[in-house]
Amino acid sequence: MGRWEPNARGRLEQAALELYSDRGFEQTTVAEIAKRAGLTERTFFRHFADKREVLFAGGGALQELFVGTVADLPDSVVPIDAVAAALEAVAAGFEGRHAYARERQAVIAANAELRERELIKLASWSAALTDTLRRRGVGDPAASLIAEAGIAVFKVAFERWVEEPDPRDLVQLIRESLDELKAATAGKCGSA
Amino acid sequence: MGRWEPNARGRLEQAALELYSDRGFEQTTVAEIAKRAGLTERTFFRHFADKREVLFAGGGALQELFVGTVADLPDSVVPIDAVAAALEAVAAGFEGRHAYARERQAVIAANAELRERELIKLASWSAALTDTLRRRGVGDPAASLIAEAGIAVFKVAFERWVEEPDPRDLVQLIRESLDELKAATAGKCGSA
Repeated sequence: MGRWEPNARGRLEQAALELYSDRGFEQTTVAEIAKRAGLTERTFFRHFADKREVLFAGGGALQELFVGTVADLPDSVVPIDAVAAALEAVAAGFEGRHAYARERQAVIAANAELRERELIKLASWSAALTDTLRRRGVGDPAASLIAEAGIAVFKVAFERWVEEPDPRDLVQLIRESLDELKAATAGKCGSA
Repeated sequence: MGRWEPNARGRLEQAALELYSDRGFEQTTVAEIAKRAGLTERTFFRHFADKREVLFAGGGALQELFVGTVADLPDSVVPIDAVAAALEAVAAGFEGRHAYARERQAVIAANAELRERELIKLASWSAALTDTLRRRGVGDPAASLIAEAGIAVFKVAFERWVEEPDPRDLVQLIRESLDELKAATAGKCGSA
């Protein structure tokens, strides 16, 4: 990247999201995104594989944060608590990004191809988390189940967070969702 | 369907799976599937939208079984037990289909487009199950969380089932997976 293009990546992300919101994802071209960002198509393709990937560019870093948080915790932390800590670390990274996340979610909800891509992202997080839990000595199928449950908690809490125009704290929503899941799966224990 | 085409649907499903296994999904055409089944392309398209959908034709019926089982249970059954009953009903429907399911899973695992379609199927089941739980009076986010957890249990147990050449009982694997999930989410309760 040349130094005459400060924050090219962020400008392209913002321009793309604005165009997708205004005109729809299908109707927007890479040329238009580059133009609105004041950059060239060539610069766009230095940062993103295609116009879909602009919306998923942060997913890899979040996955690393997820996996890294779990991997770094002492072995004495039980798996569900390790996953909870990772969920909270990821959630903290969304602070100040509610408006962007909310607009992005609306664009994704409106397009089948993007909804599929979002499912793939979550499946990838779940697979990475499963592997990390296995490396901590968690057996199968517990590793997969805890990973899937953790990603489900994130998904549900995140959807609640972006649905509300006036955002609550995502970390708090994640804690609540995890508590709800624990209460629900413990269903039998609570009754006679 | 004419009566000169007995079990056209099943024959097309079997022919498609054999060709996908032998040559790969991408390399197989609808014309080849129809030919191997001794039927016409026109008959193929009376049953399936395209060559991908042949592998997912049963998904809608399973979703109905899932949702119907939950909806029919008395209100006194707690949500996680309702979902467990539905999982077992769906699992019972796979009895005698292990060889087919195993071959199908191998075809899906080998192709990104099919893996995505499988994720969409599971997301659709989860959404339908969430709606059904809400109609039983389960609040949010509990309804989504229980549905997601239930589908995760199914996914993990089903993958274990098809991985083994010598199949165990799928219903039993589902019970074990649900128990594992319950134990894992109850992590804290078990310790000091």
